[in-house]
Amino acid sequence: MTGWVAVAGLGPGAEALVTPEVQAALAEATDVVGYIPYVARVVPRAGLVLHPSDNRVELERARLALDLAARGRRVVVVSSGDPGVFAMASALFEALEGRGETPEIRILPGITAMLAAAARIGAPLGHDFCAINLSDNLKPWALIEKRLRLAAEADFAMAFYNPRSKSRPEGFARALQILRECCGPERPICFARAVSTPDEAIRTVTLAEARPEMADMRSVVILGNSATRRVGPWVYTPRSAP
Amino acid sequence: MTGWVAVAGLGPGAEALVTPEVQAALAEATDVVGYIPYVARVVPRAGLVLHPSDNRVELERARLALDLAARGRRVVVVSSGDPGVFAMASALFEALEGRGETPEIRILPGITAMLAAAARIGAPLGHDFCAINLSDNLKPWALIEKRLRLAAEADFAMAFYNPRSKSRPEGFARALQILRECCGPERPICFARAVSTPDEAIRTVTLAEARPEMADMRSVVILGNSATRRVGPWVYTPRSAP
Repeated sequence: MTGWVAVAGLGPGAEALVTPEVQAALAEATDVVGYIPYVARVVPRAGLVLHPSDNRVELERARLALDLAARGRRVVVVSSGDPGVFAMASALFEALEGRGETPEIRILPGITAMLAAAARIGAPLGHDFCAINLSDNLKPWALIEKRLRLAAEADFAMAFYNPRSKSRPEGFARALQILRECCGPERPICFARAVSTPDEAIRTVTLAEARPEMADMRSVVILGNSATRRVGPWVYTPRSAP
Repeated sequence: MTGWVAVAGLGPGAEALVTPEVQAALAEATDVVGYIPYVARVVPRAGLVLHPSDNRVELERARLALDLAARGRRVVVVSSGDPGVFAMASALFEALEGRGETPEIRILPGITAMLAAAARIGAPLGHDFCAINLSDNLKPWALIEKRLRLAAEADFAMAFYNPRSKSRPEGFARALQILRECCGPERPICFARAVSTPDEAIRTVTLAEARPEMADMRSVVILGNSATRRVGPWVYTPRSAP
């Protein structure tokens, strides 16, 4: 048996947002590796070994997947959303550095959180935009601040991943303060929680009204650019520059 | 019959990258509206009216979809990739401005070109990144230049949509020149053409080696950040900041 690793994006939560390509990989897999809540989304079956692991052990998880594949196993590493956006694909390639033999590797894209959220909100990312991870686990906070200011100067719409967690309660409040300074109080900001799941909640306010508690670990946050507007219940960014 | 409009992302090309949600909407539709090559991707069936239209008539197309829905039709507006990323969702909301009655509207996300391309390349968007449309049809070229310089200063990885077309042969050459100035000659740049189709072609070079002709209308181009590296045949951006 020839082993392989597929790093697959499960999308934001709903089965209807999982691609057939990812479903096919799961159907062929002998092993599924991933963070506990993502592995829990895979339907168990005879012959499929599940390897759930805790958060913040991405490199160990990637090494396990490569080791299993080297022994001939067919391994799917599951990520939420898209594996290439603040998820497991980079960790897999980091784990690959310095290894000798390399198994077959495929990255299988998925619907990433910001695009699932944008679809529910309207089209807030309808013009040039950026995606910023607000966690300072793997980068200095000063770099986050610098990127926020430059992104505002560029008038990008912005999507924020990992806006807030219990271990980092302060950062998002500082981010909102910077954004208010740079973008003014009236800019629309959208909080999207648990999109496409039964817990889904979407809320749009102005930057002046935004409060850190509006986001949690299951949220993605989207800020409009200077032209972003409301029409009926929707928020969208026009295709033309202001 | 109650009409509705769904703006659906067909993904980059392969059937295996179309979500079940989008397939379900197409199965319920009475009408499909969109740019000719995207409508051509929908399997015809009895009772389904296809309305293919030419490029650059996005607002007329959006109005047609809203008019059909107002008459009780179930309309899917098809976009390539994701409808919220440089595609039809924004045009639909623009067309909605000032209209009286509004039909039910749903935006159905899809796999956008940059994420399909990134998956084939490795994980070049594995850290903070931005997406910039290089067409100056709807914005001044000066704004594109400004965004390129600020994105380089922010050390974002960058994805470029619509890098080059027959009607705009000069812009991408200027963009490459600016990027060489701001990011240096050694930065990896990836050209991904027609991802997930039989015409797929992926090529990674340095900025010094990059030539405008490496991109065309069917390409998305991805530039790494200052930490982006190669491992084997792959290109990835580490999760940690440099």
